[in-house]
Amino acid sequence: MTQNNDTILEQLKKNLAEIQHLEHAAALLDWDQQVNMPAGGADARALQLATLQKMAHELFIADSTGDLLEKLNESDYPEDSLDACLIRVVREDWNKDRKIPSELVEELASTTSRAQEVWARARTDNDFQLFQPWLEKILELNQRQADLLGWEEHIYDALLDLYEPHMKSNQVSVIFNELREGLVPLVQEIAARRDAVDGSFLERDFDVSRQWDFGMQALTAIGFDLERGRQDKSTHPFTTNFSRNDVRVTTRVHADNMKSALFSTLHEGGHGLYEQNVGSELEGTPLGTGTSLGIHESQSRLWENLIGRSRAFWEHYYPQLQQLFPADLQGVNVDQFYRAINLVEPSLIRVEADEVTYNLHVFLRFDLERELLSGQLAVADLPQAWNDRMEQYLGIRPHNHTDGVLQDVHWSAGLMGYFPTYALGNLLSVQFYHQAQLALPDLEEQILRGEFSPLREWLTENIYRHGRKFYPQELVKRVTGGDISAKPFLEYARIKFGAIYGF
Amino acid sequence: MTQNNDTILEQLKKNLAEIQHLEHAAALLDWDQQVNMPAGGADARALQLATLQKMAHELFIADSTGDLLEKLNESDYPEDSLDACLIRVVREDWNKDRKIPSELVEELASTTSRAQEVWARARTDNDFQLFQPWLEKILELNQRQADLLGWEEHIYDALLDLYEPHMKSNQVSVIFNELREGLVPLVQEIAARRDAVDGSFLERDFDVSRQWDFGMQALTAIGFDLERGRQDKSTHPFTTNFSRNDVRVTTRVHADNMKSALFSTLHEGGHGLYEQNVGSELEGTPLGTGTSLGIHESQSRLWENLIGRSRAFWEHYYPQLQQLFPADLQGVNVDQFYRAINLVEPSLIRVEADEVTYNLHVFLRFDLERELLSGQLAVADLPQAWNDRMEQYLGIRPHNHTDGVLQDVHWSAGLMGYFPTYALGNLLSVQFYHQAQLALPDLEEQILRGEFSPLREWLTENIYRHGRKFYPQELVKRVTGGDISAKPFLEYARIKFGAIYGF
Repeated sequence: MTQNNDTILEQLKKNLAEIQHLEHAAALLDWDQQVNMPAGGADARALQLATLQKMAHELFIADSTGDLLEKLNESDYPEDSLDACLIRVVREDWNKDRKIPSELVEELASTTSRAQEVWARARTDNDFQLFQPWLEKILELNQRQADLLGWEEHIYDALLDLYEPHMKSNQVSVIFNELREGLVPLVQEIAARRDAVDGSFLERDFDVSRQWDFGMQALTAIGFDLERGRQDKSTHPFTTNFSRNDVRVTTRVHADNMKSALFSTLHEGGHGLYEQNVGSELEGTPLGTGTSLGIHESQSRLWENLIGRSRAFWEHYYPQLQQLFPADLQGVNVDQFYRAINLVEPSLIRVEADEVTYNLHVFLRFDLERELLSGQLAVADLPQAWNDRMEQYLGIRPHNHTDGVLQDVHWSAGLMGYFPTYALGNLLSVQFYHQAQLALPDLEEQILRGEFSPLREWLTENIYRHGRKFYPQELVKRVTGGDISAKPFLEYARIKFGAIYGF
Repeated sequence: MTQNNDTILEQLKKNLAEIQHLEHAAALLDWDQQVNMPAGGADARALQLATLQKMAHELFIADSTGDLLEKLNESDYPEDSLDACLIRVVREDWNKDRKIPSELVEELASTTSRAQEVWARARTDNDFQLFQPWLEKILELNQRQADLLGWEEHIYDALLDLYEPHMKSNQVSVIFNELREGLVPLVQEIAARRDAVDGSFLERDFDVSRQWDFGMQALTAIGFDLERGRQDKSTHPFTTNFSRNDVRVTTRVHADNMKSALFSTLHEGGHGLYEQNVGSELEGTPLGTGTSLGIHESQSRLWENLIGRSRAFWEHYYPQLQQLFPADLQGVNVDQFYRAINLVEPSLIRVEADEVTYNLHVFLRFDLERELLSGQLAVADLPQAWNDRMEQYLGIRPHNHTDGVLQDVHWSAGLMGYFPTYALGNLLSVQFYHQAQLALPDLEEQILRGEFSPLREWLTENIYRHGRKFYPQELVKRVTGGDISAKPFLEYARIKFGAIYGF
């Protein structure tokens, strides 16, 4: 490594930082669109997003980036050092992104920005045909993108790789098949004991501003730093960030469904904790963010489910919740509450689904996306296919498109190949939590005391601080010693829900 | 004009649109910083703003812009047509902006983004010395910028031209001297009759959420379109926009000062109306915004003062206000209320000043800025100079820097040469309103009925829709047939306040 190398690396980092400024500005444009923007702003916003994303892409794929990369060699730097990882990751990103012409980036950005407005109207009006031409266009753009990126076994692989680097759809299929084989009998056993849990009181009229306050309390309790982030309301909860010191989570609050705000706050809070605790030395580089959507989801689900739907958490917090809602929770003890928030029941909406049936919603989308992308399924036939598959996987059929094929924002946002990461995250959340339990023998007692720092610090040390330094499957190996697997999740679910439903 | 010309013009417009996308993204970064951003976000935000502003500047001043401009001739297009005006304005902008290297743009952006955080702390802590090195840096950057832009009579002219194109500081001095000569005896006459007005009841405890609601009602009543804009809260009220269909105004609400939210809402609402009603055919071009800060301020002050502090407005709205605040306004009739909101009294804070003394605050800043820029006054001596000048112009002396030299955000934001436009706007608001009165004989009756469309439409037709097609002094000539002048304002103030104070 020479002085010259250092200068080259500095130049590369400077260029990458400017590209990130554009990307973070685009992220703010998107956040604002979902949280604040008046309807009239949509057309200009679509153009602004398209320009920024196009410019960021063009700057990154420029020959000058390649020239700098060519002069750098990761093996000149200590193994696993920031610089070695940076060169490796940026080289791979550059090779991938260069395959996409900036016109396509611009077209995807402006199409999806507009399509999200159309989708929102279509969803409100239960009008799939309004959205159909937009989805056809987005599918076509995704297919074009996949073909440009290149793929071997399945067109799906090219897109999946954007969200879960190095993962193949055949690997996902194997994991999902094992998961499905374990889930089907579990769902049946639970269905046979349906009466064991009553969740109806959660639909009483819970004051929305108190729900908000409790959510904020929970969010700060798990360690989300409000000096370096904030929570707002949006139609669809999400997390984004403009630096590790400015992380934005959103939630939605419904009076007649108190689970919605509570668990979406903990869920997005988990994503937020990941971003807030990426190593500060990675700030301003492309390594300074979560390494994949699957790993990200493992953190949202860990905080939402392993913590937020645990008995220990509510032993601590239920008295406080009861104080906030004395009338609604009158006569409900912590055991009944714990069972109610863990009620398992096939339902139409993915984001409201329980831990057991949630993955079935993902399988359905994974199937349909592969069929759409490979051309086996036409967009026009999608609503029918959706409803049939819902019946097959969950035994229920949507009575409208709003609660069916139009429920998720993802496709309107151009995100195909994204859904599997939700189920991968579920599996990983259990695998990572097991490791935390091994490392922190007092973990359950800590949670009983409402003390989350040891867990958060363990996760920071083992996962968060690394940012994108390690690819997801390498990170999984480092933390768990093995690969992603359905078994730990199935075991966890069988024990937890066996106890609740009594089998 | 040839086909070729059309292609060149289209290419120019396309480039300019992309530059505007960057500028509007930067405007959103700034809006978010003032409305939402957690403190931790400041460092990254400063860098993001600097990069976007630098890129927009570099793209605009590129030789390629000049090449396109060189091939275009405004006289090939109909006089006053969009295309003729566009070519003229863009050519002038390009010649001006090219004088500023992009490193200076970047340095100004990142320095001022950080300086605003420091200023806010300095203001809270009454600590001028904390802010002093930042102001020295900003002064130095402004001097450098002015010298690069070039000036003949006074360095101030180069900066003033950025906010009020083609206006010279000597012209401003002449106008301000005439204004001062009229104001001094007026203030004295009012001071001699101080007891004629009692405004103390406005400091009662007015519920902040009802204040907000009334402000929103007033904002929509004057015609601010909430489908194409929104109002939020910020420490310092301001207006910005990301297209004519996404205009953001902010206000602040204090329980013990109900004038603050009310009049800042109407003030920013006036700025907002201007931007929302710029001609839609100008959207996406550099012409699609207000033509100068002075003209902009004429609109905020017209809606705030000529309408919002008029007797006719309150004849209509006072009963509604009284219904919202029955306890606070008990026993206060509309005449007492009208007098109270028009109380004239030398005070420390510019933005809270009445219509008569407001301009004195501007004179002070105009003086000090010219002395700072020319090197006659050192930043270290500024607090003393501020306090002395306050005593000279307003007869009162600040007891701390928070309510003195640290009160305004402008200098921390790098805005030197900006303040005179406030007083110019005051003068123009009266000149324009007189023209509206001549054109709309029923104007007062309309306002008595809470009917603002005819006035708003007249302003749109004569001012708003033109955007930047005409330079400010040309626009003033078109609307009033003459030049900017202190006389109409002095006449208006003498009649209005003579009636209130009885002379």
